[in-house]
Amino acid sequence: MQIGILGTGVVGQTLAAALAEKGHTVTIGTRDPAETMARETAKPPARVSFRDWQRSNPTVKLATFADAVRSADVAINATSGVGAMSALEDAGAEALGETILIDASNPLDFSKGMPPTLSVCNTDSLGEQLQKAFPRVRLVKTLNTITASLMVNPGAVNEGDHTLFLCGNDADAKETVKRWLGEWFGWREIVDLGDVTASRGMEMYLPLWLRTWGAVGSPMFNVKIVR
Amino acid sequence: MQIGILGTGVVGQTLAAALAEKGHTVTIGTRDPAETMARETAKPPARVSFRDWQRSNPTVKLATFADAVRSADVAINATSGVGAMSALEDAGAEALGETILIDASNPLDFSKGMPPTLSVCNTDSLGEQLQKAFPRVRLVKTLNTITASLMVNPGAVNEGDHTLFLCGNDADAKETVKRWLGEWFGWREIVDLGDVTASRGMEMYLPLWLRTWGAVGSPMFNVKIVR
Repeated sequence: MQIGILGTGVVGQTLAAALAEKGHTVTIGTRDPAETMARETAKPPARVSFRDWQRSNPTVKLATFADAVRSADVAINATSGVGAMSALEDAGAEALGETILIDASNPLDFSKGMPPTLSVCNTDSLGEQLQKAFPRVRLVKTLNTITASLMVNPGAVNEGDHTLFLCGNDADAKETVKRWLGEWFGWREIVDLGDVTASRGMEMYLPLWLRTWGAVGSPMFNVKIVR
Repeated sequence: MQIGILGTGVVGQTLAAALAEKGHTVTIGTRDPAETMARETAKPPARVSFRDWQRSNPTVKLATFADAVRSADVAINATSGVGAMSALEDAGAEALGETILIDASNPLDFSKGMPPTLSVCNTDSLGEQLQKAFPRVRLVKTLNTITASLMVNPGAVNEGDHTLFLCGNDADAKETVKRWLGEWFGWREIVDLGDVTASRGMEMYLPLWLRTWGAVGSPMFNVKIVR
């Protein structure tokens, strides 16, 4: 598959490396590829600069946001929440077309210090805002409730027995993404929460996730829905 | 133990019945006991009027908010979120004293239709507001992330193997509440999320909880933190 990933940070790097390893053709999109490659230091929480990371992952291409998504079978939004809308605007509605967009982003706002707050919540969500701004895109919100390395390796926790959430307006797109997440990474239990307004709950879970991280001492955890 | 419960709704009734059955002396507090007893119809989601409920639970006393908490070993806030502050104000700081207050409430606002929104979130929470308004009270936020019948019977789901969250500023009060929740209801896994500001995450989880209820078709579920 041709996969376009928006965002050069930890989430984008982690997804790109895992998908390239499976043999997919992965292009990471960024605003200014030359600027990204010229950067010598890592942007935390990334540990290495993108340039150094790419040396270890030479099959992953770097391109503009538009070029990364234009011929992709699926686009993945792995930007920071505050950068998501401008990244999609930069890619443009024409290049995005009717692509399936996996939205893994969270509207975390670190500008007021720790813990971060959400830049949108309660009566709206980032997922809804992106879907509204790009109505032809088939947005599927998922993966945003776990840390990056667990996204691509659910088996690292409880032998893979835990729950991923997913929502979106397009039933076919959701079924397709569910299947991909199983094939790509081995996700087994994916709970469909309904239309894109469920993004509110999935994003508003982040403050609990962050405090639970603090309590258990590691981001390598997830919730399992038990009945 | 002497237990004062604020709120005559489903949560108050469920907790009161379970605690009375264990032999505790339970008093439910309400604004106007005579008015509560005169009401002939149930207030949804309660199925029966309080009067009818009390006929089946004759050992549970009904009193004013102040009388319910004045000599209680522990008070439990089981009011609706929108009624929580006025219930505590009605009880009064003098009657509340330095009591441990288990805050099981959620700031759900149903006034704008379904799904409910939160009347406070992101940069503040109901738990924090209550603690700030009554600084001597030792508030422990817990039980708010599950349905009432599961609060008192965790064994009804996954043989009791799932996670309850808890937070608050007073470490001794939290340890005491942890012990009580084990003794009263059999809770085994209680994750301490830190100070009362973790109420934000615990309350902001509600939109995800409501959508998960919709997806699994029953409120009899919970999350288990797996690592």
